[in-house]
Amino acid sequence: MKNYKITIQYDGTRYCGWQRLKNKETIQGKIEDVLSVFFGHKIEIHASGRTDAGVHAEGQVANFKVRGEKNPEEIKEYLNRYLPSDISVMEISEVDERFHSRLSASEKVYCYRILNSGTRDVFSRRFVHQIPQRLDVEEMRRGGKYFEGIHDFKAFCQNKHFKKSSVREIYSVNIETAGNEIRITYRGNGFLYNMVRIMTGTLIDVGLGKKRAEDIPLILESKLRENAGETAPAKGLALKQVIY
Amino acid sequence: MKNYKITIQYDGTRYCGWQRLKNKETIQGKIEDVLSVFFGHKIEIHASGRTDAGVHAEGQVANFKVRGEKNPEEIKEYLNRYLPSDISVMEISEVDERFHSRLSASEKVYCYRILNSGTRDVFSRRFVHQIPQRLDVEEMRRGGKYFEGIHDFKAFCQNKHFKKSSVREIYSVNIETAGNEIRITYRGNGFLYNMVRIMTGTLIDVGLGKKRAEDIPLILESKLRENAGETAPAKGLALKQVIY
Repeated sequence: MKNYKITIQYDGTRYCGWQRLKNKETIQGKIEDVLSVFFGHKIEIHASGRTDAGVHAEGQVANFKVRGEKNPEEIKEYLNRYLPSDISVMEISEVDERFHSRLSASEKVYCYRILNSGTRDVFSRRFVHQIPQRLDVEEMRRGGKYFEGIHDFKAFCQNKHFKKSSVREIYSVNIETAGNEIRITYRGNGFLYNMVRIMTGTLIDVGLGKKRAEDIPLILESKLRENAGETAPAKGLALKQVIY
Repeated sequence: MKNYKITIQYDGTRYCGWQRLKNKETIQGKIEDVLSVFFGHKIEIHASGRTDAGVHAEGQVANFKVRGEKNPEEIKEYLNRYLPSDISVMEISEVDERFHSRLSASEKVYCYRILNSGTRDVFSRRFVHQIPQRLDVEEMRRGGKYFEGIHDFKAFCQNKHFKKSSVREIYSVNIETAGNEIRITYRGNGFLYNMVRIMTGTLIDVGLGKKRAEDIPLILESKLRENAGETAPAKGLALKQVIY
């Protein structure tokens, strides 16, 4: 068996997320369909994580195993020829048989883009969440620091019936501005369901003055979802990189 | 009569260009329709220039005259509420009655974006022209310099039956790279029909080694369209700024 690692970019706007679903347009479905034609039999791919409906990826990583060797460049060219223009394969390489896109990942990087302006920007409109009210970026930066470190993120997880550990380590939360845009970059060893979007919704509350930066450790401690902010919209979020 | 100056951004992908046409989706048509509802009577707007089908704008300028005063902010908010999400009004201000978006313009800035990579980029895919073969940017820069100054650009105009003077002044042609992207910025006092796209097609030929940088003055001199390069695709082009 040969194991291939594949790095993918996608505009998630019109998809029901990564995971293959019957009668729905999904990223996994699109890629598996093309790969299965290429190899002449059913192929299953496994991603580093399932992005939600509407979430984008600049560097999603997945892997798939097949019998028989093929040139990675040939697979890449075939995929890019037959995939729709909102999915692009950046790289394919053959990797060790033990490599698993999810289990082998040591770090994930997500980026959330906010357009802090009353006027929309037509070029980034599919990739930013627009907030017209002025956000206090300095307060958001102070708030973000409270997420860093090892915490139980139960209050920042949408799944109420989550049975496994909700402890994760966030390596850093960095907030940069570029013109009217605020970009929040989250690095961590793993993220719970909707965790990045709920952290972002909470930081937006801090930026609007609805919450204080100092509320964040209290929310973490409470472990109650209702104490955190709203789940920020999917369109502003992109999985930037998966590190192994 | 009040005269309003309006600065507009648009993603031209799905439009048949600026100019109002019967039964076609155009930028002018969309804006005039919303303005006419707002003012309760037919409004005509005049742009600094008519962008072609598929061409984008980061800072198109237009003006329109109406009887009766309205708050510019109110007009702007109304337009942005009712215009489709691929057109955005950045600014509206009241200007002198003699101001004319086309006749008063002293300089126009166009930008052409080339993605020089075999792998597409899903985020910029509507706004770049992709060329997989490696382009020699240094040669393109040398070639671009020959466009600067006052020249007869007849060879770089699509309209064969153009009766008026085809002499224009190009202030500068600057080529910058950002990752795999090559951005050509043209500044000039005016541009002929398809002129920026033909200059770009010619610079692409220079980058590919099909033409030499030194051929450009000869092409200008020949005044023959067939000696210049192909008209580069509309999708890579954006009207960046109009200066008054």
